[in-house]
Amino acid sequence: MASQTLDDLPTPALILDRAILRRNLERMSSRLRGAGVMLRPHVKTAKSLEIGRMAVAGHDGRITVSTLAEARYFAGGGFTDILYAVGVVPSKLAAVGALRRQGVNLRVVTDTLAVARAIDGAARDGDTFSVLIEIDSGAGRAGLPFPELPGLLDIARVLHEAPDVELAGVMTHAGHSYHESTPDGVAAVAEQERRAIVSAADRLRGAGIPCPIVSAGSTPTAVHSRDFTGITEMRPGVYVFNDLDQEFIGACGAGDLALSVLASVIGHYPHRNQLLVDAGALALSKDISAQEFRPQVGYGTIVDAPAKDMAVVACSQEHGFVGADEPIPFGNLPVGARVRILPNHACITAAAYNRYFVVDSDLDGGRSVVDTYDRINGW
Amino acid sequence: MASQTLDDLPTPALILDRAILRRNLERMSSRLRGAGVMLRPHVKTAKSLEIGRMAVAGHDGRITVSTLAEARYFAGGGFTDILYAVGVVPSKLAAVGALRRQGVNLRVVTDTLAVARAIDGAARDGDTFSVLIEIDSGAGRAGLPFPELPGLLDIARVLHEAPDVELAGVMTHAGHSYHESTPDGVAAVAEQERRAIVSAADRLRGAGIPCPIVSAGSTPTAVHSRDFTGITEMRPGVYVFNDLDQEFIGACGAGDLALSVLASVIGHYPHRNQLLVDAGALALSKDISAQEFRPQVGYGTIVDAPAKDMAVVACSQEHGFVGADEPIPFGNLPVGARVRILPNHACITAAAYNRYFVVDSDLDGGRSVVDTYDRINGW
Repeated sequence: MASQTLDDLPTPALILDRAILRRNLERMSSRLRGAGVMLRPHVKTAKSLEIGRMAVAGHDGRITVSTLAEARYFAGGGFTDILYAVGVVPSKLAAVGALRRQGVNLRVVTDTLAVARAIDGAARDGDTFSVLIEIDSGAGRAGLPFPELPGLLDIARVLHEAPDVELAGVMTHAGHSYHESTPDGVAAVAEQERRAIVSAADRLRGAGIPCPIVSAGSTPTAVHSRDFTGITEMRPGVYVFNDLDQEFIGACGAGDLALSVLASVIGHYPHRNQLLVDAGALALSKDISAQEFRPQVGYGTIVDAPAKDMAVVACSQEHGFVGADEPIPFGNLPVGARVRILPNHACITAAAYNRYFVVDSDLDGGRSVVDTYDRINGW
Repeated sequence: MASQTLDDLPTPALILDRAILRRNLERMSSRLRGAGVMLRPHVKTAKSLEIGRMAVAGHDGRITVSTLAEARYFAGGGFTDILYAVGVVPSKLAAVGALRRQGVNLRVVTDTLAVARAIDGAARDGDTFSVLIEIDSGAGRAGLPFPELPGLLDIARVLHEAPDVELAGVMTHAGHSYHESTPDGVAAVAEQERRAIVSAADRLRGAGIPCPIVSAGSTPTAVHSRDFTGITEMRPGVYVFNDLDQEFIGACGAGDLALSVLASVIGHYPHRNQLLVDAGALALSKDISAQEFRPQVGYGTIVDAPAKDMAVVACSQEHGFVGADEPIPFGNLPVGARVRILPNHACITAAAYNRYFVVDSDLDGGRSVVDTYDRINGW
């Protein structure tokens, strides 16, 4: 391992720069500590125990997950306060209850009265639960839409009155922050997110129902929010790695992208000014989110490219088509040469791999593999 | 296992209908047997030993793979004639040589003189190789472009004259058949594919270089080709499952889609005529290929939908947004209900899963899980 470098790895491979990762983690951690807000990182991006432990350093260890597989994996790694932030359904309550009986405070979310009643029923059958009610602060995904919050108090009363159920609070995710590209634009979404979730908490408290947790957050709103008043915790996720999409919406700088895909050049096609690499749709994902702001990024851009706007412009399953906005100097990238590709959306790209090869640009420019971290995929 | 049904599985889950799979396999097998062409199925779609064995039944067992991980897995399962159909690079020759020393005829492809020379060098160091030269029959991906075929004889001579290297033949993939949507359109591409690869073989033979294998194929061209003269083997892949993209380009019928994703309804949003399911970007993939012909399919369509054009219209990582072209009867799909979603592109969707839950629509409408097949992912 000590002598392994980027030149020795099989391609495609997922490369993580630990120096950048550490700076990303420290920046978010400091920002939220300074704001007096708890950090509950969303570990769906890294899905890695090592990175999860680094992310919660200096905080109380609470995390967010997106699957029961993540919940089991992080529980097995010693995490005890876990929010499963995808609306729960009755058929998953047995698995939730099983983890809770092992001493893990796995919390669930819902926005549905029938699910609240099913949780009540499962609790009467002997399990315990901790539940947050989901609010839609404007993203138009899950949650009771603000400002109407239809049925909020009905759901809250069922949970509040159920035996062995803790109504732990309210949560929201301002996913629409991903479509803003200025600090002011994101800050406006952040304020919308804050007002919605604090209003929902106030409505519960006004009805005599406690609401200890007021949970919000996305990476952009965590970075650009100007006021956290009333929010008790933030749940940013992709900030650990960042990606082209985060760069383009201004949630990070160009030097803050910790993740890349290592690929080999497998062919030259000068008649169409393209080369092929062995990283295609599976190695990069078909996520094109970053094209919203810069169409020329395709499926990812080439690091230290020898030509302008060099990017993976098309993908088939295991082939990436690399083009550029000027003639490619093919001699600089012979067949067999290695390139690194920055992903559009780190969470989706990383999901094709079961481990990270860790390098450190503060040590030797990031040439040597200094560690490997594993990941949990699937459900 | 015997009593497990679609209602018992954790969601999301990958569901394979064995009855449809068997019909798809038999149809392609019969067609190519009837045409006197060998079948070398591309196992990158299913990546499963069980399905690979079913696919080669009645043929000689040759297969195509897209990664070295697949090569190792299928070699471990007893397959001995394997074509690795992504341009090889020098750094992968040691792994190829290692499998060959175990008695597996793992064949590689290249279109690059420098790689041919590296293969020659590795053979002089003690390994043996079998190589096919890749031809671009019009897809504009890998291969020497037809009709020029620049450098074909130079590459061929290096391989032909190298010790312990077999120049096994030529191969091409008419990927552009995926952008045709009529039998005549696909048949025209198939004829272009055939002419290109047969011409390349003839050019080698004209120079006194043997060319035993003349390999072509994609699912659409295998289905719609009207003349296989001169082709020795075809390499269809996605025909084992089919998908919405194959249906829309006319490579299969609507009843031939063997693969689906089982998901749970996790929330109702009647104010925007949407519901959410727990199958999002990872469970379905972000492949939108099928939108080329029917934009309304989004990221996949709902099986037995209770409303017109009901489909996953947007995805975040673990949330699928389901919309329809008329009001959704939400009472028919309560939160917790299960739906099945047909994928746009089966190869990419399946890659998020490490196993198939197998049902059989000829037995009980496909309710019971009759088997599980594993998959090999990664590289």
